[in-house]
Amino acid sequence: MIKAGIIGSTGYAGQELVRLLLQHPETEIVWYGSRSYIDQQYADVYRNMFRLVDAKCLDDNMEELAKAADVVFTATPQGLCASLVNENILSQTKIIDLSADFRIKDVKVYEKWYGLEHKSPEFIPEAVYGLCEINREDVKKARLVANPGCYTTCSILTMYPLVKEGLVDPHSIIIDAKSGTSGAGRGAKLPNLFCEVNESIKPYGVTNHRHTPEIEEQLGYAAGEPILINFTPHLVPMNRGILATEYASLKDGVTEAMVQAAYEKYYKNEYFIRLLGSGVYPETRWVEGSNFVDIGYKIDERTCRIVAMGAIDNLVKGAAGQAVQNMNLLFGLPENTGLKLVPMFP
Amino acid sequence: MIKAGIIGSTGYAGQELVRLLLQHPETEIVWYGSRSYIDQQYADVYRNMFRLVDAKCLDDNMEELAKAADVVFTATPQGLCASLVNENILSQTKIIDLSADFRIKDVKVYEKWYGLEHKSPEFIPEAVYGLCEINREDVKKARLVANPGCYTTCSILTMYPLVKEGLVDPHSIIIDAKSGTSGAGRGAKLPNLFCEVNESIKPYGVTNHRHTPEIEEQLGYAAGEPILINFTPHLVPMNRGILATEYASLKDGVTEAMVQAAYEKYYKNEYFIRLLGSGVYPETRWVEGSNFVDIGYKIDERTCRIVAMGAIDNLVKGAAGQAVQNMNLLFGLPENTGLKLVPMFP
Amino acid sequence: MIKAGIIGSTGYAGQELVRLLLQHPETEIVWYGSRSYIDQQYADVYRNMFRLVDAKCLDDNMEELAKAADVVFTATPQGLCASLVNENILSQTKIIDLSADFRIKDVKVYEKWYGLEHKSPEFIPEAVYGLCEINREDVKKARLVANPGCYTTCSILTMYPLVKEGLVDPHSIIIDAKSGTSGAGRGAKLPNLFCEVNESIKPYGVTNHRHTPEIEEQLGYAAGEPILINFTPHLVPMNRGILATEYASLKDGVTEAMVQAAYEKYYKNEYFIRLLGSGVYPETRWVEGSNFVDIGYKIDERTCRIVAMGAIDNLVKGAAGQAVQNMNLLFGLPENTGLKLVPMFP
Amino acid sequence: MIKAGIIGSTGYAGQELVRLLLQHPETEIVWYGSRSYIDQQYADVYRNMFRLVDAKCLDDNMEELAKAADVVFTATPQGLCASLVNENILSQTKIIDLSADFRIKDVKVYEKWYGLEHKSPEFIPEAVYGLCEINREDVKKARLVANPGCYTTCSILTMYPLVKEGLVDPHSIIIDAKSGTSGAGRGAKLPNLFCEVNESIKPYGVTNHRHTPEIEEQLGYAAGEPILINFTPHLVPMNRGILATEYASLKDGVTEAMVQAAYEKYYKNEYFIRLLGSGVYPETRWVEGSNFVDIGYKIDERTCRIVAMGAIDNLVKGAAGQAVQNMNLLFGLPENTGLKLVPMFP
Repeated sequence: MIKAGIIGSTGYAGQELVRLLLQHPETEIVWYGSRSYIDQQYADVYRNMFRLVDAKCLDDNMEELAKAADVVFTATPQGLCASLVNENILSQTKIIDLSADFRIKDVKVYEKWYGLEHKSPEFIPEAVYGLCEINREDVKKARLVANPGCYTTCSILTMYPLVKEGLVDPHSIIIDAKSGTSGAGRGAKLPNLFCEVNESIKPYGVTNHRHTPEIEEQLGYAAGEPILINFTPHLVPMNRGILATEYASLKDGVTEAMVQAAYEKYYKNEYFIRLLGSGVYPETRWVEGSNFVDIGYKIDERTCRIVAMGAIDNLVKGAAGQAVQNMNLLFGLPENTGLKLVPMFP
Repeated sequence: MIKAGIIGSTGYAGQELVRLLLQHPETEIVWYGSRSYIDQQYADVYRNMFRLVDAKCLDDNMEELAKAADVVFTATPQGLCASLVNENILSQTKIIDLSADFRIKDVKVYEKWYGLEHKSPEFIPEAVYGLCEINREDVKKARLVANPGCYTTCSILTMYPLVKEGLVDPHSIIIDAKSGTSGAGRGAKLPNLFCEVNESIKPYGVTNHRHTPEIEEQLGYAAGEPILINFTPHLVPMNRGILATEYASLKDGVTEAMVQAAYEKYYKNEYFIRLLGSGVYPETRWVEGSNFVDIGYKIDERTCRIVAMGAIDNLVKGAAGQAVQNMNLLFGLPENTGLKLVPMFP
Repeated sequence: MIKAGIIGSTGYAGQELVRLLLQHPETEIVWYGSRSYIDQQYADVYRNMFRLVDAKCLDDNMEELAKAADVVFTATPQGLCASLVNENILSQTKIIDLSADFRIKDVKVYEKWYGLEHKSPEFIPEAVYGLCEINREDVKKARLVANPGCYTTCSILTMYPLVKEGLVDPHSIIIDAKSGTSGAGRGAKLPNLFCEVNESIKPYGVTNHRHTPEIEEQLGYAAGEPILINFTPHLVPMNRGILATEYASLKDGVTEAMVQAAYEKYYKNEYFIRLLGSGVYPETRWVEGSNFVDIGYKIDERTCRIVAMGAIDNLVKGAAGQAVQNMNLLFGLPENTGLKLVPMFP
Repeated sequence: MIKAGIIGSTGYAGQELVRLLLQHPETEIVWYGSRSYIDQQYADVYRNMFRLVDAKCLDDNMEELAKAADVVFTATPQGLCASLVNENILSQTKIIDLSADFRIKDVKVYEKWYGLEHKSPEFIPEAVYGLCEINREDVKKARLVANPGCYTTCSILTMYPLVKEGLVDPHSIIIDAKSGTSGAGRGAKLPNLFCEVNESIKPYGVTNHRHTPEIEEQLGYAAGEPILINFTPHLVPMNRGILATEYASLKDGVTEAMVQAAYEKYYKNEYFIRLLGSGVYPETRWVEGSNFVDIGYKIDERTCRIVAMGAIDNLVKGAAGQAVQNMNLLFGLPENTGLKLVPMFP
């Protein structure tokens, strides 16, 4: 059994990790970390866990945790993981960081977009960006995995084959994304109250959302050159789900067959990516509770653009599910171990 | 592997059965019955099943089905199961009926409340009311299981120990129940449109909802005498979940300790019943996606009444989950096989 | 023009008051009080008011306010109004208190249920309980109006004629009430976050909700004797609306005609009460945004109980609308001035 | 008093028209047309109108209606208005058509996108496109007003000043729009059931939604040349509201000051358009129930694009409200008569 510790287990992503790991056949949770709820029963914080988790929340003690756990998940605010990691820790345990600390290779870009000084930039080079479908082989050998962001996972995977195969102008990419409210976290903030979110939709972080440089970096690798994109997130009155609607100009002569072939080339054998094909569009309800990414597209002959759309559950493939997928890779398990969850509808 | 067939697999309860059986380690679905979608890909009707189910919907052919399947689930409108069942069928397969056809022992009561002539009353006596926690031993030996209704499961289990132990006046019982909208089914009816249900709550079926006699019959057995209750269902703008708020007058001298002891006597060892105790109240979100029943209560010293509250997921413990629980009993499997689902939140 | 001041204008009830008063032909708002947002533009706190309100939030200064305003609305936490009111204030302005400070005549009951010392019990006797349909004549002459609670308005009006006419046993009354989330206020509390409320229903304050003694007092007056009831509120995932489902045992010989006659006797000419009659049930969506109370009922011949149901918009008839109705009475205006709002659907 | 008749009064837009006209000081509704509910009480179809409307639904009889009404609103499926209008009718009454029949000047474009033969193309030239803020003077003289679509109203108004002033490349426009579910109408269709819409977001009509040519035509007039755009609508789990997020490439040298000046040039004095300025974004909740259009924007210096965003209530400014605004223009009333509704929140 893999012994897993979680720092930040009482946020929504942390709790989803608990849900997934409890149902994982090869894992045992040995540490429910939560600074806010130290010494409280975990099941009092999340009553869905009543009778399933009989453990109290513990403070963050990375030294002890590294000894107790084979893998540590950090589902914490930006900056915390970077402040805790060091060579001693990494020699004892593997770390899967759900925050953004190790996602961006250029520390200046990180510090600019996040407004934080990075506390351990020396580990950035070895950290592997844990987008499993793209970086699978590197993840297997990693000590420190930077688990991708929710919007970024969906945005990158939806557009990746088209950029990688040179079918679209990468400088024309516009991503209009929509997320359920669990992405905003469990902090008691006025804008996230039920009555403020319900019966409304709003854009936020227009032109400056922190997931922008992460998408640009990864799609830039695929394009073979640095790119800039527009990324606009929106808050939707639902608990879970991300939909990314992505626009790009097709290069001359690109046909639907070429687009389809590109998607199949990269994703045909991927368990978690479901290609819907041309004219079929993803809906977040069809992936809820699962680790699937549903991708569809439509070519607009009139404007010579493609509209590519992807949907994920932000807490699963966009956070905890992908983290478990990375754990499976790290420990040599079949990648979908514990993740063959059937999407729950309605 | 148990071969399972489903008649009515494209309703919400039928689809939930598919979700559960796909994740059940000992079952294989051999028949996706659906009169409305014959010859259509099941995954086109429920796109969450894309790449998970590669089968087409079949017409209802009970004869063939009985040969192909070890167990047949009928998740169909009232009357259909009663019209299909016969000795020949029952000699070949086991039937778990999710409709009301075999729940009520007195056929006149059934015909009055449902406005239907019962087509096979001769099988009513042998049918076992599949409320597993109460009738476990009888279920194990059954050929025909009447899977309880959603409201009834929640309503009966919440009040059962108090009635059985004689702690409340059974004639004082009032049940005010609230259900998510999946309980209304997938029919394209105006009152179930999003804009009609959203941002509203309404009572319906006041004094004449069909689940009333089913609750009265079962609680009457516990009371040792026929009883009449008030049962009022309400429609809540959410997908899943039933909450039953139940009121009863305590008999003289009944204390909280006696109430707590009664609950523990019957449920302490039940995997699917989670006793919250006095002063802790169930919320439907904590059981979503799972087969749990959460029960709490509060005694009102001022009015000498008890308020007992129960919550379930109407599609799981209130339909498909309980059906699988019954299947496990029928086939000698541990009762929670395939049902150890952690409630999904948020 | 009536000059109106609002203390607590940035809570949901306060904001609704602003919405209603802006559309009221005889009123001008002269004071937007809000301790939390002093010196901030009101329209920055509630952007629906952009270009409609060009005023900043002011601190609570009752002395100044009393000079500036003909009427002061206090939409504040319990205890504040009681601490601000005095003879000098009441000699200069009229006060409509939306908190509970002056609703309950027995100060000991108030102090017990609210856990507060009452700061000006000397004004309790003269305060008029502003349930307009019942206490209209007294309101007209008042200086200090205790605006009823949201649950209480709905609960009392639904049951009042039956108690007043002696058709039901007042000791048998059980009220199961359901409220939208705006009733919980705009405080940034974890239990009111979107993801915590959405897709769930829960009971709270079982046997000890503060609206209980208020209902008991008023229905006790109608009954001519003190009564105790059960009142159970529930939180529903919607913004607005309260539904009260009320149960009572009918006295011997009471017929539907007598029940109908009782309702008509008291409410036939009431503009804001819409009698749906027997077998038609209120739904909160049909009163949203309006000051209406919809009331329906059903007699259960089997159990000899009546189920009476009422629906209101908790922010209108349950708070701000009724406050304006009281203001109209205080100033001799037609009672529905500025309140002839057509319910908004969907 | 203006006598108004409504054909299609039982759809959501028709009902909203009733709500607005009942609160309009200069109008009287003389005809509640509804083919589906002939002879039924209007208030039985929409119970919010109980006691406010005491009229039965009537069949569509344009001849009689034209005699009885000063203005006829057709809130009907595409094709119906075109089949009813003729010179005789137009000589007796004014028509405000909420369908698409007279919105598009090129009948071939209409017939291609709507898949219908136009039954009275001879009236297309005289019909005025009733986007009041743009075509105010023409509306005043019209007999036949083509009331704009919901998505189109929001999409055009948000981008119009930028195109008109030549600040953006009109061929680069991409509109990603999101709508509440009332836009889908009140038809009893499976995809619009509560459980299908709730907790999900989906794109639809990608590259081929019928509002596309309408936006292209109007923005083409502003650009002074034909243009093609991408328009992608999405369904959001809320009742009301449209948000349009629009992307365009800025022409060289365009500054924020120039953008702001363009918006002010066209909209500064518009009652119904609220300019939020740079960096403030519209949210549908702030316009709910009102005729306002909230517009904000942000320039992305990195990509040289502008993101312009607009929000409306789809049933008000996107349908019934704009129809009333057009009526006010037709009859010489102040344009905001009966439309000074304060947005309702929450």
